[in-house]
Amino acid sequence: MYIFGIDIGGTSVKIGLFKDTFELLEQWEISTHPESLFEEVSESIKKFLKKQEISFAQIFGYGVGVPGMVKNGIALSCVNLGWQNVDVKEEFSKALGYDARVYVFNDANIAAFGEAAYLNSKWDSVIFITLGTGVGGGIIFHHEIIEGADGLGGEIGHICIDDKYHLTCGCGKIGCLETIASATGMLRLAQYYRDKLPTKLDLNGKLAAKDIIDAAKEEDPLASCVFDEACQALAKAMANLSVIINPDAFIIGGGVSNAGAFLLERIKKHYANVCIKQAAHTNINLAVLKNNAGIYGACAYLINKKHEVEKNGKC
Amino acid sequence: MYIFGIDIGGTSVKIGLFKDTFELLEQWEISTHPESLFEEVSESIKKFLKKQEISFAQIFGYGVGVPGMVKNGIALSCVNLGWQNVDVKEEFSKALGYDARVYVFNDANIAAFGEAAYLNSKWDSVIFITLGTGVGGGIIFHHEIIEGADGLGGEIGHICIDDKYHLTCGCGKIGCLETIASATGMLRLAQYYRDKLPTKLDLNGKLAAKDIIDAAKEEDPLASCVFDEACQALAKAMANLSVIINPDAFIIGGGVSNAGAFLLERIKKHYANVCIKQAAHTNINLAVLKNNAGIYGACAYLINKKHEVEKNGKC
Repeated sequence: MYIFGIDIGGTSVKIGLFKDTFELLEQWEISTHPESLFEEVSESIKKFLKKQEISFAQIFGYGVGVPGMVKNGIALSCVNLGWQNVDVKEEFSKALGYDARVYVFNDANIAAFGEAAYLNSKWDSVIFITLGTGVGGGIIFHHEIIEGADGLGGEIGHICIDDKYHLTCGCGKIGCLETIASATGMLRLAQYYRDKLPTKLDLNGKLAAKDIIDAAKEEDPLASCVFDEACQALAKAMANLSVIINPDAFIIGGGVSNAGAFLLERIKKHYANVCIKQAAHTNINLAVLKNNAGIYGACAYLINKKHEVEKNGKC
Repeated sequence: MYIFGIDIGGTSVKIGLFKDTFELLEQWEISTHPESLFEEVSESIKKFLKKQEISFAQIFGYGVGVPGMVKNGIALSCVNLGWQNVDVKEEFSKALGYDARVYVFNDANIAAFGEAAYLNSKWDSVIFITLGTGVGGGIIFHHEIIEGADGLGGEIGHICIDDKYHLTCGCGKIGCLETIASATGMLRLAQYYRDKLPTKLDLNGKLAAKDIIDAAKEEDPLASCVFDEACQALAKAMANLSVIINPDAFIIGGGVSNAGAFLLERIKKHYANVCIKQAAHTNINLAVLKNNAGIYGACAYLINKKHEVEKNGKC
C-alpha cells in the first residue's frame, strides 16, 4: 500500500509518495494557489498515479498538513491561505473524486510527529519546537497529537515567559516566548540592546537572525547577549514543559536550528540550570528531517492508523 | 462486576467498592502503616468480601492511588510513606494471594481522572489543579493520564511563574507556582507583605490559608493582596497550559478550593486577562468529589479498561 504526505505551505505544496514502510519513493512541489488548491493538488496526484500505474485502491490514505489551527479535520483558520473553517477532508475528497481516507493536521504538529517517528519511534511523548519567524510546536503523547479543544495544543510560542522586555506578541499578549526566541524575536532583542552593548552588526541595515548567531559565535557582545537570552527563554519554557508533559525528548527545529551544535549546547546549558532535577536527563535533539518533516509525519501517522485498521477492522 | 478504588494517604487509606457502573457501594478507611500496608489493605478487603459473599472472580480489578511519583505501576518515590521504587502491583497481588489486575497512579493524577469522569465524561482533555499544602495536578488527554517519562507529568505546582517574590520551592527551583498559589504559599506571601500593607491578621500567631481567604472576603488590605496574587499566579499558569494542552476544562480542587465561588470568580477574572483570546471560553470548574476523587478516579479508569478488554480481548 501507498501513503501520500502533503504539506501545504504559503508559497508551495509539498507532496510525497511513501510506501507503508515509511520509505519515501517520490516527492515534488507545486505552487500554492489557495482558491484552487484542492483541484491542483488532486490533478497533480492523479497525473502522477496514472504515469506510475497506481490505482486509488492501492492508496491507504492522505495526510495533509496545513499552516493554521486544525480541529477534527477542519482548518479553523489559516491566515496565510485566507482560509476559515475549511473542511479539508471533504474538499480534498471531492477534488479526488472518491471518498478518500484523509487526515488533516496543523503543519507544526505533523512535523513533530515526523521528527519523533524518524528519530525514535519508541518515545511515548515528544515535544517538537520550531524556531522560525515565530515559535511553533507540536506535542506527541501516546502516538497521538495533542490538538487541543480549540486547536491551540502545542502552541509553545505563546507560553508567557518574559517579565523583562515586555514585548507585545502577534497574539496580543505580552512576553510570549515567540517575542524572544524566534528569528524575529532575536531581531527585536537586538534593537532593544542597541546603544546598550557594543556590536559590529549594522542595526540599521537588513539584519537576519543568522547574522546575529554568526556574530555570537565570534563573541560579538550584543549578538552574544541576544543569542543567550533567546536560548535562556526557550530553556525556561522547556523546564515548564517538563513538569507538565515530562516528555521523553525535546526536538528543536525551524530555520534557527541550522545554528546546529552552537544552539543545542547553549539550550542544554540553560535547561540544566532551570529544570527540576528529576528531568535534567531529558533528551534534547536537533530536528533532522527539516522541510520534509511534515510529509514524513503524515506518513508515520497513517502507518499507525493502518495498523489500527488491521487490528480492529475500523479506524 | 466490582471494582476497588484505593487511595493511599499519609495518615489513612481510603477504600471504595464500586459497581462497574461507577456506583459507589461502600467505602471505609484504615490507618496507614507503610511497612505493612499491603497486608493490612488486603486483609481488610478480604474480610469485607467474605462478609458480602463476593469472590475474587467478581472483582474486575483494583486501582491504587499513591502519594508520590509513579511510572508504569512502580511508586518511584513516596516521601510520606518512605517508599522508593515500590512495585505496588506485585506487592499488592502477593498480599491478596492472586494475580490481580492492579493499576497504580499518582494520587493527584487519579483524582483528576475522577473529577473529569464525574463532571463530564465527554471532555477529551482536562487539567485538574489541587491547591493544598502544595499545588498538585493531573492532566487527562484522550482518557489517559499524562504520567510523563519520569512521573513528572501534571506537576503543575512546579511551573515557574514568578519573577517577583523569588521564593525558593521545596523542589529547589525559584518562583514555582506552588510558592505562591498553595496554602503554604499564601502564608509566605502574607509574611512578605507584613509591614508593607495594613492587616487585622495576627501574622505572629498560628495562621491558616483559610484565615487569609476569610479576611480577603472582608477586604482586609494585606489578605486581599495575597489572595489576589495567588489567584493571578494560578491564572498565569492556566494561560500557559491553554497554549500547551488547550484543555476542554480546568478543575480546581484541594483544601483552598473550599473558598468556593469567591476563589473561582477571581481565578476566572485573572484568566480572562492573561489567556490567549481563542482559549478565553475554556471551562473553569470547582472540584466536586473532594476527598473521594481518588477512589472514583480509580473506578472510572478501570471501567475504561474493562471496555477495552471487552472490545479487544486484552488489556
